[in-house]
Amino acid sequence: MKKHILRARNERMKELMVEKGMDAVVALSLENVFYSTGAYIMTQRAIKDRLEIAILPQKGDPVFVVCKIEERLAKEETWIEDMRTYIEFKESPILFLVDALKEMGLEKACIGIEQHQLSAHYHMELKNAMPNSEFVECQNIFDKVQMIKEPGEIEILTKAAIGTRKAVDAAFISAKVGDTEKELANQMNINLINQGVDELSFMVLGTGKRSMYAHPTPGDTPLCPGDILRVDFGGIFSGYFSDLARTAVVGNPSPVQAEVYKKLATIQKEVIYSLQVGVRFCDVYNKCKDLYKEKELPFNMPHIGHGLGIGLHEHPIINPLNEEKVQENMVINVEPLVVYGDGAYHIEDLLLTTKNGPKILTGSSMSDEIPIII
Amino acid sequence: MKKHILRARNERMKELMVEKGMDAVVALSLENVFYSTGAYIMTQRAIKDRLEIAILPQKGDPVFVVCKIEERLAKEETWIEDMRTYIEFKESPILFLVDALKEMGLEKACIGIEQHQLSAHYHMELKNAMPNSEFVECQNIFDKVQMIKEPGEIEILTKAAIGTRKAVDAAFISAKVGDTEKELANQMNINLINQGVDELSFMVLGTGKRSMYAHPTPGDTPLCPGDILRVDFGGIFSGYFSDLARTAVVGNPSPVQAEVYKKLATIQKEVIYSLQVGVRFCDVYNKCKDLYKEKELPFNMPHIGHGLGIGLHEHPIINPLNEEKVQENMVINVEPLVVYGDGAYHIEDLLLTTKNGPKILTGSSMSDEIPIII
Repeated sequence: MKKHILRARNERMKELMVEKGMDAVVALSLENVFYSTGAYIMTQRAIKDRLEIAILPQKGDPVFVVCKIEERLAKEETWIEDMRTYIEFKESPILFLVDALKEMGLEKACIGIEQHQLSAHYHMELKNAMPNSEFVECQNIFDKVQMIKEPGEIEILTKAAIGTRKAVDAAFISAKVGDTEKELANQMNINLINQGVDELSFMVLGTGKRSMYAHPTPGDTPLCPGDILRVDFGGIFSGYFSDLARTAVVGNPSPVQAEVYKKLATIQKEVIYSLQVGVRFCDVYNKCKDLYKEKELPFNMPHIGHGLGIGLHEHPIINPLNEEKVQENMVINVEPLVVYGDGAYHIEDLLLTTKNGPKILTGSSMSDEIPIII
Repeated sequence: MKKHILRARNERMKELMVEKGMDAVVALSLENVFYSTGAYIMTQRAIKDRLEIAILPQKGDPVFVVCKIEERLAKEETWIEDMRTYIEFKESPILFLVDALKEMGLEKACIGIEQHQLSAHYHMELKNAMPNSEFVECQNIFDKVQMIKEPGEIEILTKAAIGTRKAVDAAFISAKVGDTEKELANQMNINLINQGVDELSFMVLGTGKRSMYAHPTPGDTPLCPGDILRVDFGGIFSGYFSDLARTAVVGNPSPVQAEVYKKLATIQKEVIYSLQVGVRFCDVYNKCKDLYKEKELPFNMPHIGHGLGIGLHEHPIINPLNEEKVQENMVINVEPLVVYGDGAYHIEDLLLTTKNGPKILTGSSMSDEIPIII
């Protein structure tokens, strides 16, 4: 990400720190370390104990603590000048955090930290080393800054969304009855690689009864006429996720299958349309719930959509508790799902909120007819 | 995993709980939830707040707490009969954990929990709900059980290792001067899909100066004669990781490049050979360090290898602090790396420890000549 954007975000963070009475905030997750520093350190997700820490004081300059082996990459990517490295297993990253906070004069301070990301053993080490400081959750501050996306980010997310949609559409066309779930999934993955994905991230695909699992791994089950097929998959493009769900039927749909799909597609369209600037997310959720009731579909979703970015489930989440309002330049998935009869139906598309209403980024036709695999 | 193996592992866990004075242990990570319950819930890595919890008492039957949306899959895969579900955002998974522990009569008990996995906010919620119980780290117990692999697991890990090695070998053969890093990486990924991978997990690939970053993402840099190319990549096969590193040179190697590679390959072979049952891992690490010195290569590695399984970096880690001894049926990567002159050289292969010495699972030739891309 461009350095002037990172600097502007840092200024916005400082305003929020003042507002919340925090003297500093500390980022630990891959997402917030990237959003704060510009450095994308991919092993953060896989290797939890290897911390990369961005320390952003309300006053003064930030400090970036990275594992020694990530030094070269981090230095190239970050805008933060004060970078410090620790040697894994030999030195504790928490001690580097403590030293930096002390140098900033924050021995008796209120420090925001990603508590949901900080594991209990590191948390105890930190509290023991700084008994006079208060450590509080600060996810909310990061959320408020990153949930508004920059033009460059929207461009990447759009490219990722279209590429993923094309990968699925093309695989539905090339698939045939009798192919296995795995063969279909492989084709989607290969299509996604050819669309320029950097990392395939997740592949949920199941037919028939297996479509009703939340996250089935594609297996040797062949595509049989009459089966509902559900796919939910995504990859990482320049650090940003794609996340798309589609439902198809193998062969001709039964009247019930066609009807259920049509209802769900209609609900999705209405929910997307309701994401107008100023509307509360909980109201969008409740509208979706009402639409299910009206159309006599069972509703059983804890959330019906979520922000997308460096994280897969970012703020804003469209759930009944979220009283925040839609703002311009949010990038959000809307993904109604229903388990009905012999399968699970799921449609997920990405949109950008604008002052003129939502704009679909997936480049989908938004047809309400169920796709067919023949 | 077969249910009788899961039951046997649970009995082994109970013995270790007695030994360590723990009344129960609680698994939270994808790895240990899978090793304990048999259920592979893929979203555990991506969505940290959505807990899946295996509660294994020293006496009596285990309880499995899962997020409602994962219920169908979990029920099909687990051997644990007492499964309970919570509704995300609406109900706290920690309260379900607390209820189960109280039913087990463990209100004043010593409970092992994966503290490195438990985030600080959940940790505080747990401690507040059960102020009279002591919660201690128990990763060590899980490590001791899972570090010995079963025949079925070794079979999957072997298939994954060979498939990954073939994916790289074939891509080196088909690549040519002028291809970009990204094109080469794409070919490796497509080859890995054709080898049956379920999920591509990570792809680190860089040439020239970029090979020296710990984790470069393949980019638009073309392969230029004289460049060192380093790749470290892996996927997930039936839940288990592959993880392989290779170094090649574009065009003919310089004498220095050929020599450095030869030294590193020799070190790798000697280190692998030293993994005999009964030898301490720290001694293996020190042997490696000595070999670097002897061959006048700079040594700068915090660890030189690690266990592989459902986790990418599993116990045992071959580092200077690990005084445990090699046992039979451990599956371990050995991955010496050296930054020298104009590039980073890295060779990583997987092996199985046996009573007759280590057995290479990657199916590699173990040649000490640097692979060439022409």
